[in-house]
Amino acid sequence: MTNRVAASTTISTIKILQQPSNPAWIEQAIANLDTVLLDHSHCERKAAGVAINLMFRYPSHHKLVRQLTAIAREELEHFELVNQWLEKRKIALAPLNAPPYFTKLKSQVRHGEPERLIDSLLLSAIIEARSHERLGLIGDRCPDPELGKFYRSLMASEARHYGVYWLLAEHYSDRFTIESRLAELGEYESNILSTLHHEPRVHS
Amino acid sequence: MTNRVAASTTISTIKILQQPSNPAWIEQAIANLDTVLLDHSHCERKAAGVAINLMFRYPSHHKLVRQLTAIAREELEHFELVNQWLEKRKIALAPLNAPPYFTKLKSQVRHGEPERLIDSLLLSAIIEARSHERLGLIGDRCPDPELGKFYRSLMASEARHYGVYWLLAEHYSDRFTIESRLAELGEYESNILSTLHHEPRVHS
Repeated sequence: MTNRVAASTTISTIKILQQPSNPAWIEQAIANLDTVLLDHSHCERKAAGVAINLMFRYPSHHKLVRQLTAIAREELEHFELVNQWLEKRKIALAPLNAPPYFTKLKSQVRHGEPERLIDSLLLSAIIEARSHERLGLIGDRCPDPELGKFYRSLMASEARHYGVYWLLAEHYSDRFTIESRLAELGEYESNILSTLHHEPRVHS
Repeated sequence: MTNRVAASTTISTIKILQQPSNPAWIEQAIANLDTVLLDHSHCERKAAGVAINLMFRYPSHHKLVRQLTAIAREELEHFELVNQWLEKRKIALAPLNAPPYFTKLKSQVRHGEPERLIDSLLLSAIIEARSHERLGLIGDRCPDPELGKFYRSLMASEARHYGVYWLLAEHYSDRFTIESRLAELGEYESNILSTLHHEPRVHS
């Protein structure tokens, strides 16, 4: 099990993620697959919302606007695909408590610019990298082979998304600043996930 | 000029819009085409944001979620297309004051459910119908034939969008209630636009 977790975590993901997922997480996720699928649907919609909010906050940042439009479109496409899986498995759309992960990460965003922009972009990069890792784990361990294939098919986009957020952060700052801030935020993120949240979620 | 405005307003639009646009508006728009194009870009992004916010607010409303996902995707596609036109005309992305139109419309949303949902959907229907009318007017009068063609090409989607919002309102209520509320909101909307706002906007 531990090997499997390690094997699914690519080298480029590790550059963003300080620690691979706690092996207890994939056990919890597979044992509660329907809840995690529903949460995944919320995650895709939230990811589209986050991209659009950044476009609202920085309407003159040409590169950001162009690249996040493409990401938002793709997140909505995934949202539709995940919802088709919910329908297939007869899981009703319903609200779900968000895990503490997002609020905790958000607390790390500094005030003032460009710090606020940089932190927002880097946190999105980290979240996408974590999703990439975890969707891959679900893809590998899913008892339904077709659903597993679907999860693996999403991984390339998640990887592309974290690359886009990361490079945008570098574009609006510089490589050295970004590398050191990314290490700080990445450590914080891995610490949050070191204790498994009791409700099964993509980011529990 | 007045005839032209009347001719561009289709019968189905009139069912939602109580009054056609003030003829002074198209004169203002054509005289300030670059500003209106920039504002149009903001409108497409806002329209995507509105659809996603409704999906956040009503995550269990299956039909709403499904249909607004498609609308949000299309608005983002239009946002990209409009931004390509901005680039072509060397108009830099920049923030713009919103016209009072949206805040005034929002003030009409009732508290409590399902009133809040119904009013939100109907206001979106009205805004889309007004956009449909006005993009058509720009399409007809645009001095750049290629840009005019682009504007006319957007009209079908705007018409589809207001249909979707309208039918969703009926779905979560009933035809009689919706008809009477739509007439009230439509009258309010036409009154706002009867006085031209001094800054050129899609909804000035």
